[in-house]
Amino acid sequence: MSIIERIAKGKRKPLEGFRVGFCLHVTKETSVLVMAAKELGAEVALCSANPLSVQDDIAAFLHGEGVAVYAWRNETQAEYKKCIRDVIAFKPDIVTDDGGDLHYAAHGAKARGIMGGTEETTSGVRRLSALEKSKKLRYPVIAVNNARTKYLFDNRYGTGQSTLDGILRATGMFLAGSRVVVCGYGWVGKGVAAMAHGMGAAVTVTEVDPIKALEAKMDGFAVAPLEKAAEQGDVFITCTGQTGVIRKEHFAKMKDGAILANTGHFDVEIDASFLYRNGRSVEVKPNVECFKFGGKKLYLLSKGRVVNLVAAEGHPPEVMALSFANQLASILHVAKNHASMEKKVHPVPESIDDAVARLALVAMSVEIDKPTAKQKKYQRG
Amino acid sequence: MSIIERIAKGKRKPLEGFRVGFCLHVTKETSVLVMAAKELGAEVALCSANPLSVQDDIAAFLHGEGVAVYAWRNETQAEYKKCIRDVIAFKPDIVTDDGGDLHYAAHGAKARGIMGGTEETTSGVRRLSALEKSKKLRYPVIAVNNARTKYLFDNRYGTGQSTLDGILRATGMFLAGSRVVVCGYGWVGKGVAAMAHGMGAAVTVTEVDPIKALEAKMDGFAVAPLEKAAEQGDVFITCTGQTGVIRKEHFAKMKDGAILANTGHFDVEIDASFLYRNGRSVEVKPNVECFKFGGKKLYLLSKGRVVNLVAAEGHPPEVMALSFANQLASILHVAKNHASMEKKVHPVPESIDDAVARLALVAMSVEIDKPTAKQKKYQRG
Amino acid sequence: MSIIERIAKGKRKPLEGFRVGFCLHVTKETSVLVMAAKELGAEVALCSANPLSVQDDIAAFLHGEGVAVYAWRNETQAEYKKCIRDVIAFKPDIVTDDGGDLHYAAHGAKARGIMGGTEETTSGVRRLSALEKSKKLRYPVIAVNNARTKYLFDNRYGTGQSTLDGILRATGMFLAGSRVVVCGYGWVGKGVAAMAHGMGAAVTVTEVDPIKALEAKMDGFAVAPLEKAAEQGDVFITCTGQTGVIRKEHFAKMKDGAILANTGHFDVEIDASFLYRNGRSVEVKPNVECFKFGGKKLYLLSKGRVVNLVAAEGHPPEVMALSFANQLASILHVAKNHASMEKKVHPVPESIDDAVARLALVAMSVEIDKPTAKQKKYQRG
Amino acid sequence: MSIIERIAKGKRKPLEGFRVGFCLHVTKETSVLVMAAKELGAEVALCSANPLSVQDDIAAFLHGEGVAVYAWRNETQAEYKKCIRDVIAFKPDIVTDDGGDLHYAAHGAKARGIMGGTEETTSGVRRLSALEKSKKLRYPVIAVNNARTKYLFDNRYGTGQSTLDGILRATGMFLAGSRVVVCGYGWVGKGVAAMAHGMGAAVTVTEVDPIKALEAKMDGFAVAPLEKAAEQGDVFITCTGQTGVIRKEHFAKMKDGAILANTGHFDVEIDASFLYRNGRSVEVKPNVECFKFGGKKLYLLSKGRVVNLVAAEGHPPEVMALSFANQLASILHVAKNHASMEKKVHPVPESIDDAVARLALVAMSVEIDKPTAKQKKYQRG
Repeated sequence: MSIIERIAKGKRKPLEGFRVGFCLHVTKETSVLVMAAKELGAEVALCSANPLSVQDDIAAFLHGEGVAVYAWRNETQAEYKKCIRDVIAFKPDIVTDDGGDLHYAAHGAKARGIMGGTEETTSGVRRLSALEKSKKLRYPVIAVNNARTKYLFDNRYGTGQSTLDGILRATGMFLAGSRVVVCGYGWVGKGVAAMAHGMGAAVTVTEVDPIKALEAKMDGFAVAPLEKAAEQGDVFITCTGQTGVIRKEHFAKMKDGAILANTGHFDVEIDASFLYRNGRSVEVKPNVECFKFGGKKLYLLSKGRVVNLVAAEGHPPEVMALSFANQLASILHVAKNHASMEKKVHPVPESIDDAVARLALVAMSVEIDKPTAKQKKYQRG
Repeated sequence: MSIIERIAKGKRKPLEGFRVGFCLHVTKETSVLVMAAKELGAEVALCSANPLSVQDDIAAFLHGEGVAVYAWRNETQAEYKKCIRDVIAFKPDIVTDDGGDLHYAAHGAKARGIMGGTEETTSGVRRLSALEKSKKLRYPVIAVNNARTKYLFDNRYGTGQSTLDGILRATGMFLAGSRVVVCGYGWVGKGVAAMAHGMGAAVTVTEVDPIKALEAKMDGFAVAPLEKAAEQGDVFITCTGQTGVIRKEHFAKMKDGAILANTGHFDVEIDASFLYRNGRSVEVKPNVECFKFGGKKLYLLSKGRVVNLVAAEGHPPEVMALSFANQLASILHVAKNHASMEKKVHPVPESIDDAVARLALVAMSVEIDKPTAKQKKYQRG
Repeated sequence: MSIIERIAKGKRKPLEGFRVGFCLHVTKETSVLVMAAKELGAEVALCSANPLSVQDDIAAFLHGEGVAVYAWRNETQAEYKKCIRDVIAFKPDIVTDDGGDLHYAAHGAKARGIMGGTEETTSGVRRLSALEKSKKLRYPVIAVNNARTKYLFDNRYGTGQSTLDGILRATGMFLAGSRVVVCGYGWVGKGVAAMAHGMGAAVTVTEVDPIKALEAKMDGFAVAPLEKAAEQGDVFITCTGQTGVIRKEHFAKMKDGAILANTGHFDVEIDASFLYRNGRSVEVKPNVECFKFGGKKLYLLSKGRVVNLVAAEGHPPEVMALSFANQLASILHVAKNHASMEKKVHPVPESIDDAVARLALVAMSVEIDKPTAKQKKYQRG
Repeated sequence: MSIIERIAKGKRKPLEGFRVGFCLHVTKETSVLVMAAKELGAEVALCSANPLSVQDDIAAFLHGEGVAVYAWRNETQAEYKKCIRDVIAFKPDIVTDDGGDLHYAAHGAKARGIMGGTEETTSGVRRLSALEKSKKLRYPVIAVNNARTKYLFDNRYGTGQSTLDGILRATGMFLAGSRVVVCGYGWVGKGVAAMAHGMGAAVTVTEVDPIKALEAKMDGFAVAPLEKAAEQGDVFITCTGQTGVIRKEHFAKMKDGAILANTGHFDVEIDASFLYRNGRSVEVKPNVECFKFGGKKLYLLSKGRVVNLVAAEGHPPEVMALSFANQLASILHVAKNHASMEKKVHPVPESIDDAVARLALVAMSVEIDKPTAKQKKYQRG
């Protein structure tokens, strides 16, 4: 609440007259964002960014509060798409997405009447940037994912902790002494690698980007092509935002008992469909499937879907609060400034980022220095 | 199984004719030890080392397998003591304990007929050493807890991981950016501190032993008296094996929202009874009680009992397997050598420790070097 | 040499006909860059970016090789400025600077005939950005300092290592168990903090930027205003690029025996002039001056100048080689593309950055993955 | 001085009437110990524990102060032995050694009149324990090396820092991104491995002891036989106290440019004599010799002698002060209690260890808790 007040800066209903369409994981955490938009005056509709993560009680609660909810647990792929179209049909002024599917659907419908939007994920931003490049982006979008505070909290530390937490809950394995292979050394991979090492694991990083590979190497991790790392890993964690990262040629080289987890976006990073087609699968514990494959056992967690959301409880509340502050402030920014914003993917304005970081420091009782007048002058050159 | 075979070294029934009395946490893990003793020929009886951790299905299973089981969930204190007496009445030759209560009861009954025993915990060993000092120890005991492999696996890494896991499951808190106060820098404290730091927390250590305090300081942690640390901590974790470590004068200085967890032995490290007498308690989540106290909220996990057993699933199986190998080999050692062992607390024989470490390395596919003939000679001087 | 060949990409004299003016630390490492420019066809002049770091034998060597050298050890401030004017008078086409003084002088002289330039340091870039903002920048400049490979190697790991190395050589102090206060959590501060912690020190970070402060906090370091940190530190290391960071109010609160080191740019981060005016100074060892001040002793290293250059040997050769590759490739880029470049501060082109990272990975025998065709397509959206 | 006063506990000349024979590195640090013994009333003689580390000015100074000095720089092997015999001929009551050579010589001379001694190093203690085992030890010896404070400060952190410092000064290499192979995971190896990792290196540990190997593995390091690690290392650091650790079969597998450093005792850990016999050696920098061998270059630091003493400045003064307090207190303990001590190798009495740790904490301004009366009672059981 104090966040909402600080962000609204005294205006009672800054979103009055705006219709906001959301495509989000339907959980308690995101419901807070939807309700906040409503609180600030908006009319809101909601579909799910992931058919599997819908919490029906939350959906019911939001519906009761007057939100137009198009989401239920275990939607079929067809239902999932229909729900997205329903949100478009709601004629939103502002579109807030987590993955890019809603933005894509909006563009399929010519984005009529949409003033602007926000996007939560790296993979969604990538899809929007491709649109921008080909001059097809029809409204300005703030890439909330690019907020520096989001990098720090959500991607690095938040996903780092919740990924390991998810793996420990699902498997009860022992990290100390194990070899963890981290695929991708972006912000999420950095967090996962540092924390896995901090729990006593040896870490090998795989990358396609030479600069990120170099950084992993300088951080003291082993760096290798996945084909070599496949032979050594006890656990494999994908965090690339890419498709087909772990494939049959890698499965073939793995040790008996290897564990496979994904903490990137969607469920395409590990080629689970190959395993399902070629191995016999048994659920040995909730969220742990065992495949007999080539004379050995491989364990796939949460069917290759994001392990931190499925097997653990997602991000800690502190992280969600910051993400939430970023998103809400970005929606307000679009509402206020859309007319003057170019039709491209915008970073989160620095002033929002700074304000969110200060909120977090206050919450942690951390004080910092202020530049002196002399220093400000020095900085200006 | 392969462990049992290696330890039995070809003999089919090395425990034939022995009666073994166990006082252990009644869980799947320890049931393996009890069954192994039976498998090797012993007659066995079992009571619980902790009335709260009894898993009734395990107790039922063991009973069905012919074990004399005296344990059920939520025993009263009186029942707990009666169960221990029942195991003594079973007239064991060898006594295997986890805390020292069974050894104490055996001594109360003059330890008639008992050839020797083993003890699992630091606090139990401390009690037995006090007996030895006052010449009252009536049979030799192997301090399994003192095995070097146990220090490494079970106390440091095992409890380190399961303690953090327990806290994360209970609270969902965010470790990165928090201040964790670790009370006690023995093996458990070292593991908890290193891993908490590895997850992004800042760590303050409190100690009464100057050498351990120095070690914590040289490891890069802040070291302070608890009275000062109390003001700064977001989470407090006791791992001392001592009583009354966190007391009212410390509660009084804590920040609003501080979390209190114990991962030492028993439930005496945090003065929970003070909280219960003086604050209003509400269970906000399973294993999390909120106390309003002096205008602020304090959160006590699992009523001050060991958080890794109550809120998480205890040690990972790899750790249990090693502990188990140590215990079983120690029981066999007592069975074979009791006549020649002095009536004192013995360390785990080096040969057992080495053999267990080699078992673990094999399981991890780690090869190591062998000393050359020249080196062996050099070592002899 | 192999670097030069790879960068020149087969062209024998890509700098033929260009005059390049350099303002650099006159050391063996930078002489390699100057000679490489000459090798590739340029006419070159050189003055020093720091009057104190000139190695006279290197200056003599370069002069012998046909470089117009305007630099000698211990230049007065007036001589230092005159040398810079001499390089301007040489009428360079391209200007390569380390700090911004040469660029400033060039602008003072209306930048006549200058096609473009490069700048090595954060503080230099800041000064150029200020010019750009006020529309006064007269030629395009590549901010070599902004290369991602430079961040990684030079600023973070290179300066991290050489700073600690410089402090250890100067003082012989014991890092384990000490409290190190790191002022500034930019790339340099991150490297210094991580490595100081890795050597067993406890670290407190001070910052003025809320996002960087948050990052330091989430990395597990203590964060505090300098006024509070001043009371606790055994060593203070400034890495801000700012002026007047450690001032008399901080000196007043420090412990007896505190050590003061600067590893930012120039010598203005620690207010050494205050110490010289108000304390009695004695050189107790090379590069270590003791000030008696308010009843205690403070130790200032290398007179507040960059400790890694003065007290140690600067960056390791691997780091210099990469920096060098970045600089040389950037000079070639300016030579080739200046006509089409806007008059602003440009980041190092991504292609240069990638190529340099690949050079480094090859040198370390590290192989990495390549994106599959399917992944490239997925990335395009 | 304050240390001496605290240790002497008010007695002015507790060593009056005792003759003490020392065999130590003749450096400023150890001269303090020799002078302290004199100060406390002893007559003293001194030879060098290492012919190469003698600082002639220190030898001259001690001679001037009335110490019988038998040591000069670059003694031949014959001179070295003669000097040791001279100290025996001095008829010491107490013998303080650093390596065991003086103790051996004393036993060769039947140890006539010697009441007891102290020994500083692990390898010396090993030799004395072999004597004890074969019932040939003729006087009690305190193994100063076994002091817990010494483990912490001197072996782990002290040697850790000074070893890396020595390697950086000698080579200027870049630790971040390199692969450091640490041979031996005793206290020294643990310190070197942790700090090398803290500077950004990846670490592989080699061991012959399965428990230490397991500990290294659980600490997150790679563990491998040296034969495999030889192929990967950029730097090799021996810390085993053993002979012939790195041998020709390992040299044969190393990468071009590998660096070899020893920080154990003596100069036998790396088979340097093989290199000298089989490769061409050139000193490329002080303390760095390059061998061309099998088509590649290997770099041997400080001729295979302890790199932290030869290439850096040995331990930081804080570490030396603690070592010194341990040694002096141990000498006083022997002087006072020799009559009642068994003829075996004794650990440092716990009371000395505790007192030294408290000295160190005071020096660091660290306060710690005291056990409550209730806790003391609980601990007694």
